[in-house]
Amino acid sequence: MDNDNPLRQIMHPRSIAWVGASNNPAKMGTIQLLVLKHTNFPGPIYPIHPEEKTVLGMKAYASAADLPEVPDLAVLIVPTRVAVPVMEDLGRRGVKRAVIVTAGFKEMGQEGRRQEEALVAVARRYGMRFVGPNCIGVIHTGARLNTTFFPTQDKAGALGIASQSGTYVTQVQLYLRRRGIAFSQAVSVGNEADIDVVDCLEYLAGEEDTRCIILYLESLRRPRRFLEAALRATRVKPVMALYVGGTAAGARSGMSHTGSLAGDDGLYDGLFRQAGVLRVNSIGDLYTFGFALAHQPPLKGNRLGIVSHSGGPVTSIADACERNGLEVPVFSRALQKRLEDVLPATASGANPVDLTFSLDPGTMAVEIPRRILESGEVDGVILHGVMGSSFRDVFAGQLKGLLDLPLEALAEAEETSLVDLVDMPRIYGKPVVCSSFMDRNQDNCTRFLQDHGVPVLYGPEKAVRAMAYLRRYGRCADRPS
Amino acid sequence: MDNDNPLRQIMHPRSIAWVGASNNPAKMGTIQLLVLKHTNFPGPIYPIHPEEKTVLGMKAYASAADLPEVPDLAVLIVPTRVAVPVMEDLGRRGVKRAVIVTAGFKEMGQEGRRQEEALVAVARRYGMRFVGPNCIGVIHTGARLNTTFFPTQDKAGALGIASQSGTYVTQVQLYLRRRGIAFSQAVSVGNEADIDVVDCLEYLAGEEDTRCIILYLESLRRPRRFLEAALRATRVKPVMALYVGGTAAGARSGMSHTGSLAGDDGLYDGLFRQAGVLRVNSIGDLYTFGFALAHQPPLKGNRLGIVSHSGGPVTSIADACERNGLEVPVFSRALQKRLEDVLPATASGANPVDLTFSLDPGTMAVEIPRRILESGEVDGVILHGVMGSSFRDVFAGQLKGLLDLPLEALAEAEETSLVDLVDMPRIYGKPVVCSSFMDRNQDNCTRFLQDHGVPVLYGPEKAVRAMAYLRRYGRCADRPS
Repeated sequence: MDNDNPLRQIMHPRSIAWVGASNNPAKMGTIQLLVLKHTNFPGPIYPIHPEEKTVLGMKAYASAADLPEVPDLAVLIVPTRVAVPVMEDLGRRGVKRAVIVTAGFKEMGQEGRRQEEALVAVARRYGMRFVGPNCIGVIHTGARLNTTFFPTQDKAGALGIASQSGTYVTQVQLYLRRRGIAFSQAVSVGNEADIDVVDCLEYLAGEEDTRCIILYLESLRRPRRFLEAALRATRVKPVMALYVGGTAAGARSGMSHTGSLAGDDGLYDGLFRQAGVLRVNSIGDLYTFGFALAHQPPLKGNRLGIVSHSGGPVTSIADACERNGLEVPVFSRALQKRLEDVLPATASGANPVDLTFSLDPGTMAVEIPRRILESGEVDGVILHGVMGSSFRDVFAGQLKGLLDLPLEALAEAEETSLVDLVDMPRIYGKPVVCSSFMDRNQDNCTRFLQDHGVPVLYGPEKAVRAMAYLRRYGRCADRPS
Repeated sequence: MDNDNPLRQIMHPRSIAWVGASNNPAKMGTIQLLVLKHTNFPGPIYPIHPEEKTVLGMKAYASAADLPEVPDLAVLIVPTRVAVPVMEDLGRRGVKRAVIVTAGFKEMGQEGRRQEEALVAVARRYGMRFVGPNCIGVIHTGARLNTTFFPTQDKAGALGIASQSGTYVTQVQLYLRRRGIAFSQAVSVGNEADIDVVDCLEYLAGEEDTRCIILYLESLRRPRRFLEAALRATRVKPVMALYVGGTAAGARSGMSHTGSLAGDDGLYDGLFRQAGVLRVNSIGDLYTFGFALAHQPPLKGNRLGIVSHSGGPVTSIADACERNGLEVPVFSRALQKRLEDVLPATASGANPVDLTFSLDPGTMAVEIPRRILESGEVDGVILHGVMGSSFRDVFAGQLKGLLDLPLEALAEAEETSLVDLVDMPRIYGKPVVCSSFMDRNQDNCTRFLQDHGVPVLYGPEKAVRAMAYLRRYGRCADRPS
């Protein structure tokens, strides 16, 4: 789509020069290089070090001039004062792309701003493009590329992120892991002295591994160009944004973070709306609803079916639906009759469907949703409480010595039956979203569903909010082009 | 406070008769009795069974008439059709309190409604008071009482809950455990044929182990009495409510859940406001913000100090503060100067305080918050990213063979230094709330803080929302009495 994008080569490098690692394991540059090694980056890595002959067991080079080839990418984690001469050295050798992790520039005031301008000037002179400075690095899971200090998951996700915060691509990894969420690609843009969020948006729109783009924004340097890029991107995939520069407090905090001036909240709100960018109000929402958008088809109408074995959660979900502009239609007599075949006598099948008590995922998670989706009476389904091992583990603890449950066989049978649920969104073209109080480390069903693209959110109302975003995307996707 | 409350004896029983357990481990009544046994209830338990001589190793009695004493409480998990005769049997023996788990009453329509009226008639005749029917049971952690099927945590929490959903006191246990939240006492009220939510509110207001009362409501049978009870309760402790019956969809769902008619949302909103009951919109908020209210002093003004080593989270927090009516004042020159002594050169100390990078909790979590709270320039402090073992575990993985970190000693030192932070809310009379992406299973600091009453919420904006509730409670607590 956009092969000229400067990020293309940065995110798909065949070789990397690394400036700022040594054999001192307490240094950030060293740790980041270790992470890259452990990520098993497949191409050659060339550490550049003025004195060391080897760095972390790899042959080191005294300067860029000594490199055996021109690397596709250079990563800089050096003291602020040497960043400009190092860029000069790399530029002379013909290096065209860099990630500058080094901080101490625009975000530090007047002198830093001058240093940052000098960086840009060197880059211009040699035709170099770069991410940063004051960023945390980039991640491309499928390319086994991770220049940050934080290890990522092995399996690539479908979320591409561009972030004006490094924390939101690194320290969040443990948070994401608990939710089965992973990045396809991630760019910590830092001060955006050269490459900015707009470049990232254009780049990620063309990357097949990325099915939803999420943005963390404190400011936009090029709002007009952002609008154009977003209008194009939202034609091909959902784009969500968290913008925190619209309040006085947020703008002031952002200023000392990346040295950027933020813009009026209402203005940005209009910009996002016009571009079809879905705005969220928390970083958690960005990840979790982004996951739903990446994996589920848009919600094409307002009507939802709700299924659970718990009266509290279905009532909470029904209430939250109405508060979020979604409907819970009473099922037709015909559909209620079809459901009665598989419902226990105490159950209610009018919608919400409350099975009262059932631990058989074959009924709750397959037979019932299939009948509901087949009927054409709803546009999507929310399920609460599909669970297996968590509940069994609790019971097994109580029943020890009285009843031995075949734990592994039961879990396997559950997961086999859940394959049918996982396929429904594709078959019926309608989204399925789940909620559960059991997380993926506690329950095999939660893990299985998340790993197969069915969102399992940790709270019934969150499933409704995910549906509300799927509906908003459904409306955006419908717009005339 | 209210020793006549019928729940007093139900929640503090010296002895329990149990009707509906057998030696069949696949029966609900059996599992629930096993849970009670495993909870180590200290008093005598008397299983009543028409045929068995022993139940789960305990001597069983053919009927209530055969019991060696009049038990303080009877628990019924019997088929619907025998519930009335069993109550009759218990009443004749002089039993005055019961928990009726049995379902199939008002929530099942006309015939069920008649059965429920018969239950009430028997109870009236013998002067019995009961919880249920169609409930999941009661929990009183400190009394080692748990009549539900779901085991609870050993350590009592400070949250007392009355819930019109059984799921919200049982299946949520695993969700609560991941957040360090536990109940002091819990009542699943079911159909409220006799004891209702108002009784629970009055009872919990007088229980010392309960520092915050949370309510899950689909309807209120006695709104006027609720208002009176809530006005009294909110004088002594915070009360929060999730009400889901105010939408058409929520009301319809609640009807088939507990057979109760719900009321207009605006009406209930006014009722809560008048009573000083803080309303939330999701069950997760009820638990997590309830935890904050139970353990932290109210926020007495709007001014917050924000501290982190991450620019993204502090900017998100600052933005969320303003959106939630809270202020992030620029610190005075004098305070900024006092902070400079402990801040790294790259840090920003104007508020938010961004340490840029620091893993020393002694500085970030003790020295800085203390200086801020001492100054009197803020009414509370939010900290993001106090962490220890999670981060070290990640680094230790990368550094294996290069650098051996004394993991246990470091964790111990951290926890020792966090004791000072834990004490600050009491010393300064101002709340401290944290956020982190590392949960209590991943990080020792998260666990330590939560276990000592400092909320650690899994998302920066959530910490702000907790503060907004602490502020709302601060305003309620100020009202003239």
